[in-house]
Amino acid sequence: MAVHTALLRLRTQGDGDIVDLSPGLAGVLRTCELRRGVVCVFVEGSTAAVTTMEYEPGGVEDLRAALERLVPAAGAYAHNRLNADDNAHAHLRAALVGPSVSVPLVEGHLVLGTWQQVVLLDFDTRPRERRVHVQVLG
Amino acid sequence: MAVHTALLRLRTQGDGDIVDLSPGLAGVLRTCELRRGVVCVFVEGSTAAVTTMEYEPGGVEDLRAALERLVPAAGAYAHNRLNADDNAHAHLRAALVGPSVSVPLVEGHLVLGTWQQVVLLDFDTRPRERRVHVQVLG
Amino acid sequence: MAVHTALLRLRTQGDGDIVDLSPGLAGVLRTCELRRGVVCVFVEGSTAAVTTMEYEPGGVEDLRAALERLVPAAGAYAHNRLNADDNAHAHLRAALVGPSVSVPLVEGHLVLGTWQQVVLLDFDTRPRERRVHVQVLG
Repeated sequence: MAVHTALLRLRTQGDGDIVDLSPGLAGVLRTCELRRGVVCVFVEGSTAAVTTMEYEPGGVEDLRAALERLVPAAGAYAHNRLNADDNAHAHLRAALVGPSVSVPLVEGHLVLGTWQQVVLLDFDTRPRERRVHVQVLG
Repeated sequence: MAVHTALLRLRTQGDGDIVDLSPGLAGVLRTCELRRGVVCVFVEGSTAAVTTMEYEPGGVEDLRAALERLVPAAGAYAHNRLNADDNAHAHLRAALVGPSVSVPLVEGHLVLGTWQQVVLLDFDTRPRERRVHVQVLG
Repeated sequence: MAVHTALLRLRTQGDGDIVDLSPGLAGVLRTCELRRGVVCVFVEGSTAAVTTMEYEPGGVEDLRAALERLVPAAGAYAHNRLNADDNAHAHLRAALVGPSVSVPLVEGHLVLGTWQQVVLLDFDTRPRERRVHVQVLG
């Protein structure tokens, strides 16, 4: 078997910022000789997540609003109280959405739908430089 | 390494329909020579998701109700307003649950619990024909 | 390709117990000759889940509270009514969070953030002995 290892470094705005990983993933696949297998996309850190969505302005606005409604930034969180911190909601959202997505690679292409992109969600309370690992197995 | 590629095509009812993927996965494994590795199950599209659950009528009813309570179909969603669409809630549920599950394969069997099945959740507002990719690495 | 198969057996307290899998995963990697690939962590059963988080007392308390708020233990659940059971909320939480996480392995290490651990969440209503499968592909 072969493993192709890549690292995407992305600047985010934090605060629920949603970043389309398609350009980064396309770049990885251009330099990867593997044509069939699985692509594992994983974000380092406990205040960010990876999922797929249709990356368009309405969906981005809705997802940010839904996460704020389900897990509000304001709240009597133990993480903030015990650690003199302000990003407990970011930790919770990240744990619930999850840090990774695995996408089959077939004939050199990710088997995504036409309106489906792999995205990075950064829930932290400040801009961050994020490290997204892309491991291709095939 | 070896890769076994399969595609399941499934008709769903949409509107929160939950489909047991066990028969489809069993069919894939019958024709797959790999006995040990990981099976990646991934649904194309941004209004459906894959997870595991005990597939029984009560659990199915509860999961549909919980998702309707957490992310209601009715709402002032930007996706619907900007795109003259009606399935913003389906996009949100899909992004939150996620499109893929990876299950270890040991001695030719998925290491699922006795009452644990891989399921497809279709949140879209109409019946769909779904494409679920099954990639076996081993 | 090579596959390294391991099984962690863990006793949990149930009721939202969150267990840090870091010691177990470190043990698996010590006996694994693979240095680069993907580690798939998967929990058997439909009332437990796997994700990543900063494993510290505040975050653990917050995550338990958030899941109880989003999917309360008390409720008119069909699973409980139809099966004379009491753990419908555990099934729902497990399906929403998901049973597996895949983490890239690079130079013999999981690419986790400094404050990011892989954790097992046991939502069942009683202590359980859990089986967490760790499949390393590389």
